[in-house]
Amino acid sequence: MPKKLTKLMITGFDPFGTEKVNPSWRAVSNIPDKIESVEIIKQQLPTVFDKSLEKLISQIEDKDPDAIILTGQAGGRHAISVERVAINVNDANIPDNENNKPKDNYIFDHGPTAFFSTLPYKEIVDQIRNYEQIPAEVSNSAGTFVCNHVMYGMLYHLHQRNKPIKGGFIHVPFLPEQVLNKPGKPYMALDDIVKGLLRAIKVTCEV
Amino acid sequence: MPKKLTKLMITGFDPFGTEKVNPSWRAVSNIPDKIESVEIIKQQLPTVFDKSLEKLISQIEDKDPDAIILTGQAGGRHAISVERVAINVNDANIPDNENNKPKDNYIFDHGPTAFFSTLPYKEIVDQIRNYEQIPAEVSNSAGTFVCNHVMYGMLYHLHQRNKPIKGGFIHVPFLPEQVLNKPGKPYMALDDIVKGLLRAIKVTCEV
Amino acid sequence: MPKKLTKLMITGFDPFGTEKVNPSWRAVSNIPDKIESVEIIKQQLPTVFDKSLEKLISQIEDKDPDAIILTGQAGGRHAISVERVAINVNDANIPDNENNKPKDNYIFDHGPTAFFSTLPYKEIVDQIRNYEQIPAEVSNSAGTFVCNHVMYGMLYHLHQRNKPIKGGFIHVPFLPEQVLNKPGKPYMALDDIVKGLLRAIKVTCEV
Amino acid sequence: MPKKLTKLMITGFDPFGTEKVNPSWRAVSNIPDKIESVEIIKQQLPTVFDKSLEKLISQIEDKDPDAIILTGQAGGRHAISVERVAINVNDANIPDNENNKPKDNYIFDHGPTAFFSTLPYKEIVDQIRNYEQIPAEVSNSAGTFVCNHVMYGMLYHLHQRNKPIKGGFIHVPFLPEQVLNKPGKPYMALDDIVKGLLRAIKVTCEV
Repeated sequence: MPKKLTKLMITGFDPFGTEKVNPSWRAVSNIPDKIESVEIIKQQLPTVFDKSLEKLISQIEDKDPDAIILTGQAGGRHAISVERVAINVNDANIPDNENNKPKDNYIFDHGPTAFFSTLPYKEIVDQIRNYEQIPAEVSNSAGTFVCNHVMYGMLYHLHQRNKPIKGGFIHVPFLPEQVLNKPGKPYMALDDIVKGLLRAIKVTCEV
Repeated sequence: MPKKLTKLMITGFDPFGTEKVNPSWRAVSNIPDKIESVEIIKQQLPTVFDKSLEKLISQIEDKDPDAIILTGQAGGRHAISVERVAINVNDANIPDNENNKPKDNYIFDHGPTAFFSTLPYKEIVDQIRNYEQIPAEVSNSAGTFVCNHVMYGMLYHLHQRNKPIKGGFIHVPFLPEQVLNKPGKPYMALDDIVKGLLRAIKVTCEV
Repeated sequence: MPKKLTKLMITGFDPFGTEKVNPSWRAVSNIPDKIESVEIIKQQLPTVFDKSLEKLISQIEDKDPDAIILTGQAGGRHAISVERVAINVNDANIPDNENNKPKDNYIFDHGPTAFFSTLPYKEIVDQIRNYEQIPAEVSNSAGTFVCNHVMYGMLYHLHQRNKPIKGGFIHVPFLPEQVLNKPGKPYMALDDIVKGLLRAIKVTCEV
Repeated sequence: MPKKLTKLMITGFDPFGTEKVNPSWRAVSNIPDKIESVEIIKQQLPTVFDKSLEKLISQIEDKDPDAIILTGQAGGRHAISVERVAINVNDANIPDNENNKPKDNYIFDHGPTAFFSTLPYKEIVDQIRNYEQIPAEVSNSAGTFVCNHVMYGMLYHLHQRNKPIKGGFIHVPFLPEQVLNKPGKPYMALDDIVKGLLRAIKVTCEV
């Protein structure tokens, strides 16, 4: 029987672009500090290339979690999207929060083309749908902005350090308040995003 | 100063088509029986041409409300949609719950082409957006199925009886649980639908 | 046997809002001057409240057509939308081309709430779908901007003059070139819009 | 100055799922046999895991093209989607044309996680948009069905054989005739898909 995990890190981003809130951090900050026997470490990351990854890696080294769930906003998506893969490219359509806008750069020059998530992404999706009755899906692209950047960078880091810990990324939709002037854009209630992330934590930690 | 309303009727429908729930009735049944000084009369209507209207009118005559808010499911809509107008046509694309599927019939042979809602629909939309931060919009079509049918029929009835009471229709989106296997279809959390209807009641009754 | 029609007027609008072209006029100007035995009168209308209607009515009185098909752009719609009904309201969300932005005004103070189209809208939709294999639908709302304004105004005029001629409105989607920077917005090729309008003319004139 | 290419292979698929046509092959079969000095080799592939790839590779070895553009249908996409990356997974939601439905298998057990396209995908997208005025975009996911399967398999094959030839994948939307009963689904006219592919060939071959 696999050992149950005891320390999970979950991150969210600060707002970017024209948005005043980021549903990922809003949801993460609503997660309790302890879920059953698992200690939850919550961390906000800046929506900035490189800095986000530096902060994440320093936190991983400092806190030494057993599993890591990164979360971010995916404006335009209908469902909680659990990412399958991160690719080795930075290709921004809008500037990050320090005005960087890399185009078609590698994240790591000699890194592999991609890494698969090591979270149980299918099981997370199934349980969010079945137990929470909330729209969720496996996504095959985390984009090419800061979300994919930290997902790839984290998986590369864990691979380099040979750390066999579970890690991956979950994208969440806009909140209702973000789409008031975006007719037709999908959104999800904060409560449902939080329920989805709690379920993801439970599946990941098998609690 | 206009007299505040003291008795409001709000209706929802039973499930129809391939759906197992109807968010309109789910939401209405969560509305309290009294909001400030206003008595709330909740009524489920069958998703059946004519029968729905007969039941509604008999309830109106029996309960004599000061205002009437009809609600129904609008699968595919992103926002709480407060209807502006009902038109004199039954034109079903799917059968109702007793297998009626009228095509291009008048609701009342000698009725006018349309009636405008007499609810304060603009103010309802504005307050749902501003105070509840929930997507809401004025809609210019209640469709041509049972929702439009009861809206038109009620407004025709009130007009015939010369009853100067406020009446109209609010469409609500699918619930999250209804779209699990409808990728890309919009939905709204039940809590948010309820908040929207509560706000509509308050605006209508000026409480 | 009904007399076949011999003179049809078809109109389109000039560009409005932030658009540089209007697919309705682009398509109308590609319609030939004669279709079988039917003379086609093509007329551009300004996207301006009142002026559009004045121009249309003066053209109707001058040219005395047997049928009138008004067309306009419906950005955001997926299909050729043949309108069923026009309502007695001007309610603009953006300014027209002379900076008018009426809010919740009647088009005619003592006009009825709505007029149904007198075009064979169901048959037009069926034939566009079946013979041209192009997406088409009956629409139950022409909006509350200049398109609905001229549709209502024309039907009111024909009704007042007791002219038993067929008249109605067809909305067409954006062109591909209009959505290059509107990700996810639907569009239709100009050739297909033209084919749809030609079919609508043939159905209306029974040629 | 780079040598201009003289032989380009372009493939499309046969229809799959509930569809009666496949816009990719419909478009490819409309491409001429010669474009300026470039010989065009057109090949239909079966929508079947493994068989599609075996046929493709045998054709590549037989015809020895200088560049390869694979195309396929992406129902639900609004734009011509030039793929950036293929991933090492077969994960079907519907059966292929021989009833295979692999779930979460590797395409090649010891293959890398992903390969980037070696087509000039950004330039193709830019030129389709600027010169043809047709919606086009870089896509970061070719899915996990047969399209991604042949794209990954081809890139793996070229990499193993050390063949420095350009290769990649272009997804095209449904045709209008395919969405008549799929309200709201995006589509593109066949002429426009053909224009987009012709432009992609010209960019790839620098003619």
